[in-house]
Amino acid sequence: MQLGKPRAERADARRNRLRLLEVAREMMAEHGTANVTMDSLAERAGLGKGTVFRRFGTRAGIFKALLDEEAHRFQEQVISGPPPLGPGAGPVERLIAYGRVRIEFLIANLAVAQAAMERDIRAPAVEVDMTQMHLRMLLGQADLDVPDLDILATQLSAALEGPLLLYLASAPPVETLDAEPARRLADGWQTLVERLFGIDAPRGTEGDAPQR
Amino acid sequence: MQLGKPRAERADARRNRLRLLEVAREMMAEHGTANVTMDSLAERAGLGKGTVFRRFGTRAGIFKALLDEEAHRFQEQVISGPPPLGPGAGPVERLIAYGRVRIEFLIANLAVAQAAMERDIRAPAVEVDMTQMHLRMLLGQADLDVPDLDILATQLSAALEGPLLLYLASAPPVETLDAEPARRLADGWQTLVERLFGIDAPRGTEGDAPQR
Repeated sequence: MQLGKPRAERADARRNRLRLLEVAREMMAEHGTANVTMDSLAERAGLGKGTVFRRFGTRAGIFKALLDEEAHRFQEQVISGPPPLGPGAGPVERLIAYGRVRIEFLIANLAVAQAAMERDIRAPAVEVDMTQMHLRMLLGQADLDVPDLDILATQLSAALEGPLLLYLASAPPVETLDAEPARRLADGWQTLVERLFGIDAPRGTEGDAPQR
Repeated sequence: MQLGKPRAERADARRNRLRLLEVAREMMAEHGTANVTMDSLAERAGLGKGTVFRRFGTRAGIFKALLDEEAHRFQEQVISGPPPLGPGAGPVERLIAYGRVRIEFLIANLAVAQAAMERDIRAPAVEVDMTQMHLRMLLGQADLDVPDLDILATQLSAALEGPLLLYLASAPPVETLDAEPARRLADGWQTLVERLFGIDAPRGTEGDAPQR
């Protein structure tokens, strides 16, 4: 397949792809995800339906490509962006920052992630392994004295992403989420991490009301 | 619909239902969920296919009914069973016990929960709200000095159930899960709760290795 395929065509393909994603993003900004279809996207981008089909396969494929792009950008910020999300801050600070920005990311991309789910596949298109691996790395760096850091990373990933992934299965599709639950989830994440590290955590044990 | 429907028929319906669930459970114990179909169930129970169809609607409906029964039994243990799962123990002890038994429950019912998912519906048939409500109640009783107990309950529910709910979406279906991940998840849950309550939690902060 590669033989005889001129480089110029690949550059074309890439340009078409970027153009289509740009137009899809415009259409979403105007009317949400519902009106982005293979046909409407081709028409507005001034490209043939065949081109859209070859690039994305299905309507969900358009959103998967958009989500991949966003996820890639997010990941770059985590790997090499400024602290505290990127390297340079302490692991606990980075854990908190990761959760806060991840919640924003998931909420901002909820509608896209939902539209990216293929009808016959149950797994959400959102990449969840990255969170688990990143939390695991930071927990390791933080020298937390917990016997099973792998399981802790799994459970914290679920605590962070689970409440939002639940929205992916909801019908009708969620176009936006209020700022209020986003803030509460972010604050809740921070509290959870701080408690885990024994930071600023008044004790409340059984039947033993904390002093206020 | 209720008028003219004799009580005797309801008792019959109930007996058939229980009989069908019992036979389904036998069939699962022998060969897993795969061989339980509307036809094979009717045949083995010595009942008409129409009866099975009226009771359960779809094949997934059989497993949903089985799961409901198990969930009901679990819930009864939580509400009125012996402590520490049931009432009578302190809230932290009950939080830990709930998580440990819930993990066992989810693992024991993984194959059933998976088979209970309708093909065109993405949400798992497992009831997740109960966990959230129960954790919220116990967190409230424990007088934990955290500003947003609702969010904490949501995030802890996800930490507890998320790692196992992910298996529901997996293909091929999971018939069993090793004892090892179950034990690690249960221990991890206990550690998480203990840390949250500042119980036996050596501090490990940024760049600050704990004394061992």
